[in-house]
Amino acid sequence: MTDVIIPSRPSNNPPPLADGGLRIVALGGIGEVGRNMTVFEHAGRLLIVDCGVLFPEDMQPGVDLILPDFRAIEDRLDDIEAIVLTHGHEDHIGAAPFLLRSRPDVPVIGSKFTLALLAAKCKEHRLSPVLVEVAEGERTQHGPFELEYFAVNHSIPDAIAIAIRTAAGLVLHTGDIKLDQLPLDNRLTDLAGFHRLGDEGVDLFLVDSTNAEVPGFVTPEREIGPVLDQVIGKATQRVIVACFASHVHRVQQILDVAVKHGRRIALVGRSMVRNMGIAADLGLLHVPDGLLVDLDAAMLMPEDEVLFVSTGSQGEPLSALSRMARGEHRQISIRSGDTVVLASSMIPGNETAVFGVVNGLVRLGAHVVHQGNAKVHVSGHAAAGELLFLYNAVRPSNVMPVHGEWKHLRANAELAIRTGVAAEQVVIAEDGVVVDLVDGKAAISGRVEVGHVYVDGLSVGDVGESTLSDRLILGEGGFISITVAVDTASGRAVAPPTISGRGFSDDPKALDQVVPLVEMELSRTEAEGITDTHRIAQAVRRVVGRWVAESYRRRPMIIPTVIPV
Amino acid sequence: MTDVIIPSRPSNNPPPLADGGLRIVALGGIGEVGRNMTVFEHAGRLLIVDCGVLFPEDMQPGVDLILPDFRAIEDRLDDIEAIVLTHGHEDHIGAAPFLLRSRPDVPVIGSKFTLALLAAKCKEHRLSPVLVEVAEGERTQHGPFELEYFAVNHSIPDAIAIAIRTAAGLVLHTGDIKLDQLPLDNRLTDLAGFHRLGDEGVDLFLVDSTNAEVPGFVTPEREIGPVLDQVIGKATQRVIVACFASHVHRVQQILDVAVKHGRRIALVGRSMVRNMGIAADLGLLHVPDGLLVDLDAAMLMPEDEVLFVSTGSQGEPLSALSRMARGEHRQISIRSGDTVVLASSMIPGNETAVFGVVNGLVRLGAHVVHQGNAKVHVSGHAAAGELLFLYNAVRPSNVMPVHGEWKHLRANAELAIRTGVAAEQVVIAEDGVVVDLVDGKAAISGRVEVGHVYVDGLSVGDVGESTLSDRLILGEGGFISITVAVDTASGRAVAPPTISGRGFSDDPKALDQVVPLVEMELSRTEAEGITDTHRIAQAVRRVVGRWVAESYRRRPMIIPTVIPV
Repeated sequence: MTDVIIPSRPSNNPPPLADGGLRIVALGGIGEVGRNMTVFEHAGRLLIVDCGVLFPEDMQPGVDLILPDFRAIEDRLDDIEAIVLTHGHEDHIGAAPFLLRSRPDVPVIGSKFTLALLAAKCKEHRLSPVLVEVAEGERTQHGPFELEYFAVNHSIPDAIAIAIRTAAGLVLHTGDIKLDQLPLDNRLTDLAGFHRLGDEGVDLFLVDSTNAEVPGFVTPEREIGPVLDQVIGKATQRVIVACFASHVHRVQQILDVAVKHGRRIALVGRSMVRNMGIAADLGLLHVPDGLLVDLDAAMLMPEDEVLFVSTGSQGEPLSALSRMARGEHRQISIRSGDTVVLASSMIPGNETAVFGVVNGLVRLGAHVVHQGNAKVHVSGHAAAGELLFLYNAVRPSNVMPVHGEWKHLRANAELAIRTGVAAEQVVIAEDGVVVDLVDGKAAISGRVEVGHVYVDGLSVGDVGESTLSDRLILGEGGFISITVAVDTASGRAVAPPTISGRGFSDDPKALDQVVPLVEMELSRTEAEGITDTHRIAQAVRRVVGRWVAESYRRRPMIIPTVIPV
Repeated sequence: MTDVIIPSRPSNNPPPLADGGLRIVALGGIGEVGRNMTVFEHAGRLLIVDCGVLFPEDMQPGVDLILPDFRAIEDRLDDIEAIVLTHGHEDHIGAAPFLLRSRPDVPVIGSKFTLALLAAKCKEHRLSPVLVEVAEGERTQHGPFELEYFAVNHSIPDAIAIAIRTAAGLVLHTGDIKLDQLPLDNRLTDLAGFHRLGDEGVDLFLVDSTNAEVPGFVTPEREIGPVLDQVIGKATQRVIVACFASHVHRVQQILDVAVKHGRRIALVGRSMVRNMGIAADLGLLHVPDGLLVDLDAAMLMPEDEVLFVSTGSQGEPLSALSRMARGEHRQISIRSGDTVVLASSMIPGNETAVFGVVNGLVRLGAHVVHQGNAKVHVSGHAAAGELLFLYNAVRPSNVMPVHGEWKHLRANAELAIRTGVAAEQVVIAEDGVVVDLVDGKAAISGRVEVGHVYVDGLSVGDVGESTLSDRLILGEGGFISITVAVDTASGRAVAPPTISGRGFSDDPKALDQVVPLVEMELSRTEAEGITDTHRIAQAVRRVVGRWVAESYRRRPMIIPTVIPV
């Protein structure tokens, strides 16, 4: 087997696109898990597939969301023909409102459920986008792009794959995909449709890499039902089941089990209530009349006649479940013998938070059932065995692994090669790396700048690497501030320096020793006739910095302020 | 099966210990993974088993280490007869120097390798402790405590379990333990010895809980050898293997494979070099003459004739391996086709860092082998199947699960009950909860205060919850500082306010809007005749806080400084 070719990162701007060619560039989602957004360019026009958010990690403190970097297209917003969404997860739709702010008239294409979730999100942003609802089997035309839609199975209803036909050839983008052969809604991934495209000849296949490292096949969602049935069937007290607020089929199975065991359902968490309302309205979630009760009513019912379906499965500290685990929930207090089910995965990076919740619940005496001790979760992404089915159906000329970190992309590339795709036709192109499909061959042609765009509170983009770097320093060591009022004529300090610290020490006397050192330094600068406030500040910073490094071996931020009076 | 009894947390100080009773209290290690330290009291004297450190998590920013809380024994240091160490891992010996600072004359008991590691650590602290070397099969007496030592198998050589005989009965503490039946050094856990103790009658059994949730048995360490052989055998370029710096048997297997494939060894990382030197000196690591080369020499050798054994398997950002993954290592630069093996577990909380290293290496073209895609690591802690062997050998009257978070403790308690221990004799007692063994029955008698003691740089204990809380706020949102010089007679600001922020925004004009609001507020306080600097500061804080919440929806720390002039 030929080995995967790991390209070196290009540094050049791409040359102009060859006539009749198709250009592909991801502004997010390749080399990372989240903020998926791919831009296709043909005949001077642009098509965008997905526009999602990424959730921040430790090195991005205080950030609420990370957006794809729109800079590469900001001068070409008028060229955008459409935004097409593969499904309704946040990492595929969450950034769309931020793009729509600049071009509110661009049509947004998606399936019914996807658009319903997007519409709810846009409402919060006070936007009324132009929505174009499509379904599997349909085709639409947008400038030079002809799109065809295929049913795919994922951990949210109504997901689609997208075929893009242009004069440059036929492209297939899976979106997020798996091949559950017993899906709860009987809506299978359209493998026959993919095979038909393969017969026609797929020039470029963009494939979900998330689970490419996982051997075999994902267990059918349907197999979770009996496990829930067993766990909930033997519960004699309160039962709380936490899962993702968009996982309609998971919630359906919980509802079905609740009905069987004579329990009514209370939904807990704003997004759970909202999304399940939408799903029920669209006929995707079947809720027997009278099954749902609100939380207040549920609290008055016997404990073995109600089941709470809650958000918070990722250990989010403000979620209802985390509050219960800390014994701080306003209404629900966990008692010994209660049952809590985490019917969810653990997103990498959330392990500590989730285990914190589990330990808190166990300490209160709850039986905690999670994917570590029972089959109460299955992934929404195709494992290696399923990806092989996809490659063999599509038989693509060129492959671009998408949606994943480097280890996932590489594992996916290996699978493509094992099915017979030539190694040089498997193009690993992380965010910003430009791929051109010309004369049936995909190749890297250059790179555009793709950075992280941070949302913090109401503002987008004003928090950047400099602010984050300051936050990391402050978060590790706090700061020491020294304020001096100086007579600008003489350079003399008119009052003793004010020295204080935050995040440095609990000891109120910690900074006492440095005061005489600062005073000595101020005498020196005065004696040397230094009156420039900036130079005085630097001198103070140096003295305090040296003192704290030697006495404490710590590195707080040192902030001298010299006030001219 | 009777269910595990989850005790409610006692709030009372324990009453005086009954005559002839034995008191047990963990100052660390129960309800958490790390800083193991258990205090035994009998006849007015104390015995300490282990004295380790805990590594900080996200909510403890800037902290280097967390120590057990010695306050419960600080008035009784003179009563300590001995500190006995079960093995040489940091979470069992790392805090000993901090305790020895107060009582440098207390004898420290342990096996040869454990004491050698402790001695190296104490040297860094400029301490020369009184070391008492023991081996399995031996007995020693320390005041009213008679100790007997048993060989146990773990992920470090020379680990021991400790039997403690007093007039109150016979206690057995496993330390960290597993039951590898094919250990590399042929030193089996002494199950026959445990059985003999069981015949004598074990009144209280303290048992490692770390892997109690894991069904079955841990794979023998020996099975890693053939996997390494296969991976390293087919490598044609550079090979780097990362593992824990104390895992002598893992390193031995790497060395053996290197010899087989004609590669010499370079050790990378200070602790790796130090510990393997100690292990070789003690005859625990067998290093053929001339196998080791230093890093500079290794860099001059052909790539297929050398193998690097490195630290950094947990993604520590300053480690050699992390530098290689970022392409920043001074000497070793990863090329496409190199092989990197992470022959280690992933400690919970380190996932993001480890995956970051893996992705960096893959991006540079390395083949990365880790426990997710090959059997290159086995745990050092007994899984559920092994724990059942232990319970059936020892047949204890009372059980105390130790070493673990609540979910581990509970799973361990369940196993004890399944082997026939009465549920009410399985005592889950987290850090600080006092257990008294009186007349052959263990029961919770109260609780002592056990907090977190933080080491940050050179100082112990001055960083506490208040400082950490400030760091968390600063790390999330930075700060805005406002400095005003005020004439204390009139309350008039003598110069315009100085307003600046760090960790708040990259936008240099972000704070411009608030200046007039502060000036207006200062005019108001002056007009109202307010001259008290504290009141003026509060007024300024209120104005700025309200402005930032409304305009940005952020919560930086607001720091007003009013300088009287």
